[in-house]
Amino acid sequence: MSFQTRFETIPLPQVKVNDRFWSKWIETLRNTTIKAEYDQLVSTGRLANFKRAAKQEEGDFEGLYFNDSDVYKWLEAAAYALAYGPHKETEKLIDEVIGLIEAAQEQDGYLNTFFQIRHPQAKWRNLYMMHEMYCAGHLYEAAVAHHEATGSKRLIDVAVKNADHIASIFGPDKRRGYCGHEEIELALIKLGKAINRPDYVELAKWMVEERGKKPSAYEAELKDEVARKLNPWDDKDIEENVKDGKYCQDHAPIREHTDIVGHAVRAMYLYIAATTIADGANDEALEKSLVRVWDNLTKYRMYITGGIGPAASNEGFTTDFDLPNRSAYAETCASVGLVLWGSKYLQMTGNSDYADVVEKALFNGTISGISLSGDGFFYCNRLESRGEHQRVPWMTCACCPPNIARMIGSVSHYCLGVSQSDLWIHIPLGCTIDTTINGVKTNVEIKSDYPWSGKFEVVVTPEKPVAGGVRIRIPDWATDVTFEIDNTDEEADYEDGYAVFNRTWSPGDTIKADFNMAPMWLQANPKVLDDLGRVCLTNGPLVYCLEQKDFGKEPLLFMADTEGEIKAAYEPNLLNGVVTITATGYSEKDDGSDELYVEAGSVGQEEASAKFVPYYSWCNRGPNSMLVWVRGL
Amino acid sequence: MSFQTRFETIPLPQVKVNDRFWSKWIETLRNTTIKAEYDQLVSTGRLANFKRAAKQEEGDFEGLYFNDSDVYKWLEAAAYALAYGPHKETEKLIDEVIGLIEAAQEQDGYLNTFFQIRHPQAKWRNLYMMHEMYCAGHLYEAAVAHHEATGSKRLIDVAVKNADHIASIFGPDKRRGYCGHEEIELALIKLGKAINRPDYVELAKWMVEERGKKPSAYEAELKDEVARKLNPWDDKDIEENVKDGKYCQDHAPIREHTDIVGHAVRAMYLYIAATTIADGANDEALEKSLVRVWDNLTKYRMYITGGIGPAASNEGFTTDFDLPNRSAYAETCASVGLVLWGSKYLQMTGNSDYADVVEKALFNGTISGISLSGDGFFYCNRLESRGEHQRVPWMTCACCPPNIARMIGSVSHYCLGVSQSDLWIHIPLGCTIDTTINGVKTNVEIKSDYPWSGKFEVVVTPEKPVAGGVRIRIPDWATDVTFEIDNTDEEADYEDGYAVFNRTWSPGDTIKADFNMAPMWLQANPKVLDDLGRVCLTNGPLVYCLEQKDFGKEPLLFMADTEGEIKAAYEPNLLNGVVTITATGYSEKDDGSDELYVEAGSVGQEEASAKFVPYYSWCNRGPNSMLVWVRGL
Repeated sequence: MSFQTRFETIPLPQVKVNDRFWSKWIETLRNTTIKAEYDQLVSTGRLANFKRAAKQEEGDFEGLYFNDSDVYKWLEAAAYALAYGPHKETEKLIDEVIGLIEAAQEQDGYLNTFFQIRHPQAKWRNLYMMHEMYCAGHLYEAAVAHHEATGSKRLIDVAVKNADHIASIFGPDKRRGYCGHEEIELALIKLGKAINRPDYVELAKWMVEERGKKPSAYEAELKDEVARKLNPWDDKDIEENVKDGKYCQDHAPIREHTDIVGHAVRAMYLYIAATTIADGANDEALEKSLVRVWDNLTKYRMYITGGIGPAASNEGFTTDFDLPNRSAYAETCASVGLVLWGSKYLQMTGNSDYADVVEKALFNGTISGISLSGDGFFYCNRLESRGEHQRVPWMTCACCPPNIARMIGSVSHYCLGVSQSDLWIHIPLGCTIDTTINGVKTNVEIKSDYPWSGKFEVVVTPEKPVAGGVRIRIPDWATDVTFEIDNTDEEADYEDGYAVFNRTWSPGDTIKADFNMAPMWLQANPKVLDDLGRVCLTNGPLVYCLEQKDFGKEPLLFMADTEGEIKAAYEPNLLNGVVTITATGYSEKDDGSDELYVEAGSVGQEEASAKFVPYYSWCNRGPNSMLVWVRGL
Repeated sequence: MSFQTRFETIPLPQVKVNDRFWSKWIETLRNTTIKAEYDQLVSTGRLANFKRAAKQEEGDFEGLYFNDSDVYKWLEAAAYALAYGPHKETEKLIDEVIGLIEAAQEQDGYLNTFFQIRHPQAKWRNLYMMHEMYCAGHLYEAAVAHHEATGSKRLIDVAVKNADHIASIFGPDKRRGYCGHEEIELALIKLGKAINRPDYVELAKWMVEERGKKPSAYEAELKDEVARKLNPWDDKDIEENVKDGKYCQDHAPIREHTDIVGHAVRAMYLYIAATTIADGANDEALEKSLVRVWDNLTKYRMYITGGIGPAASNEGFTTDFDLPNRSAYAETCASVGLVLWGSKYLQMTGNSDYADVVEKALFNGTISGISLSGDGFFYCNRLESRGEHQRVPWMTCACCPPNIARMIGSVSHYCLGVSQSDLWIHIPLGCTIDTTINGVKTNVEIKSDYPWSGKFEVVVTPEKPVAGGVRIRIPDWATDVTFEIDNTDEEADYEDGYAVFNRTWSPGDTIKADFNMAPMWLQANPKVLDDLGRVCLTNGPLVYCLEQKDFGKEPLLFMADTEGEIKAAYEPNLLNGVVTITATGYSEKDDGSDELYVEAGSVGQEEASAKFVPYYSWCNRGPNSMLVWVRGL
């Protein structure tokens, strides 16, 4: 394996999304989520913090010390939303917010409203806990997104001023420092590549490399009284955490990482940067380390939904095969991070294995984190609930709502790619793409009903005939794949899980693909103790679940007959339109007895059928029990 | 039903325990537990607090504000331990501790080292949180126990002085007040009955009656700045708790109680007092309320082990059929409380239903809380563990270790009873009893191998032939019971689940009983979602569990064949001697695959046998996974 970019993402304005599935999500983002989240930024004082830092109004800092990041992530999402077409209100909101950010930035580039308002003398003193660089990173990502979507450089200017400020303090010949919550690394790289500032990429690389070296950069902070006073946790807990290092992946230098450890979101953000850094570097040790960690994560520690990080205690990872369902933490942000890391990895390798993981998270464990209405959110994505887990309009720590919004806004980035000669289709997103293949302007139309059907068409229309490739990923779940090109017998080549069509394309040339999607029952490795005796229903990329609303009683009462009849049906009026799957099995008979403990075998069973819905769509009909892994076999 | 005492417990010195099962527990109590817990009282400053209150030494109060109660409960246990025979060291320790208590007591009878050392001006200001009366109650119980076991009145004098002090402040014509943690009510009754002070019983009754009336007595405390400053929790949480009332059963007057609610230990202690108060009062409303609450507790909210109170959040009750296994709180103290309440209820009704519950808790969910070595403890008694739940020598909040010690020390109280004319055998404890039947001195010998066998003999030897009754409880688990008296054809009468032998007894008359104990698989009501598809192995009063140590792999991998062969065997060298039960079934085959998710049916199964051990004996061989409800059917 060699880490070298195989394709680039396609700028959003070049992709017109026209997809039965994703278009709805994008519409909801544009029409509801952006405004609903903006209203939360206002009502929770997140925007007021910028006004107060800018001395436009009086008042103390409100909320959590890293709340600026929510504003930046919202801005990133809002910028993407604009890429799909004009939206007066969103444009106005974006301009207003950028104005606040510009006003709050200090002369020297510093920008963090918590420190500006509360602790102007304590800047950069407590990198371990205080998220200053983390917030900065989200500013840079917002700037790049705003530039990509609108062409405007307003926010880029703020970002550059801030990054230059940070670069003036930290670096190889300056102060050694890296943020307790990774993010700035990937953001510096993104910004550096977008505006051709290789020094930013170098700074990010240095931060990634310094992390985990002993002594930890945080040890000095433990002895700094100013830093300690800022600590939101007990000093003792922080000391233990710093010593151990795993919580923020500071336990070992990047090349020595083996298992995925610590806080899940932090880990994802670190590895996105590390993966990018490996690009073309021929850094075998780094590549090996990334492979080890990726494999550990996706082969032993990932929920079937693409949820990651099972534990609340560290918002992160525990041990192999530890995947409890009802207490699954599986933070929305962590799965968004997995989509980003997997996509980055895919970009480096062109190997469909990474896209398989991206797809799993994209269609399940990420979008489960936002309601179909676009204004209800999960922080944690349980795989079992007895009605206690409910969506909320916002959280005190509200990292997830704008994170899922920015992912939806940039969905085509994770489905498509383009290189000099090739168009890459990782996921058949229904859309029209304006791009170039080997220098020839080419329009590509993907007609797709994914994930409701495995059939789709790719119509390639270059301005003039052009030689080049179209690469279509074959998903891991597809056992019987057929392709057809315009009534010819041409066969695809296969490379790393992609069907590769290398030919001369004439306008209107069409690939017809069929992945033969069909419902399938899966079981987990018996080492996953929480899934013993359980099965999970899938259909193509979608994981299904059973809700009480559909079963009429507690989903745990269903016992699937995995050999039994199974029926899939598209229901346009249910949950914004979903394919439901009805399975057969058994259920304990309710004989009206309330006796608590009886002789085994006393409780009768009866035949039962159960209608499953896609996991992402659960908890959109009020309080409700839900189960992904139903009893069965 | 009418609540009137049917029998009295037999003073410990009149019962010589000679029981294969309980004698070991008592020996361990005498030889290990008493000293080990004393050492903890010393090393954690619990005894030093008394010295400091007595001004015998300098120093601040150490530990939690209710730590005095641990000293009193230890004293109660130590006093019981003495009843089985002289023990120089224990006698010395008891004398020393009583001396400290005497010295610490103030002139006016007040005694609570936390307030004496830290807040002498804030006494009795925060009854809701501060456990002053709770600690006093445990003092009284210790005093009565010490008196019963040794005949000494030293501690009774301290108790009376303290109770008189409390009675001078609180009462119908004085200040309205009752403790946030019930205990003093049952203790005042115990003390009052032991030394014939009906005014104490009346005070207790008043406290029980005042509880739950609106406004709560605690509402005034919420407005008292002195009281608020003492609060160990957030004021807001306390305000909400006081308003709701359920946490400490202050939600409604006792006669209006329906479901069991709130903190489990508090509830038990309240209902013990309330049950006693109903004695002969013909208080139909109170009796109905107690029946409702008892039924709700034992029919819908009790683990099969006699564990109660599933939730950590309130250390108590939730909803019907909510009985999670791995997170089972099931505090040792709560099950001890259940033994005490059930025994009190049994005493009032003579109905074996209550003894069935007592037996369940006595042989399972209580003694699971102490190691076989006598110096390792559980606070929570899980029904499932993956090795994370370990015994500890002591806790910061150490209510459980001395509580289980005092229960073991007084075990015959829960097995036997005597009335004017009848001997009651609730549980066939191997022992020799010196008592009187209708005024005739009678020696009763019970030869028993319970719970390892359902066969036992009762040899009745009055000084001279006497007419009277021997009542033997028929346990709920016994489906085929036979009795035989000295080769005659006499048949028993049956009353409320007891076999009643009413006859004239001559020396040596012997009842031979056989409960035909046999292993049995049980299942839970399907409403207990956590037990769906699961079965539990029992043998007579014992609940069994499967430990990894015996199965060789994770117990969750076992699937019981409840129709399969099953073998019971006594293993003298295992776990202090236990009957093990080996069952057959299936297990997922380990084919070496690490693949996380595979097509359902891919994982093979193989035959397996699994050796179960009694639940109480689990976690006595190091870190270990354990399961009560194994997969099956």
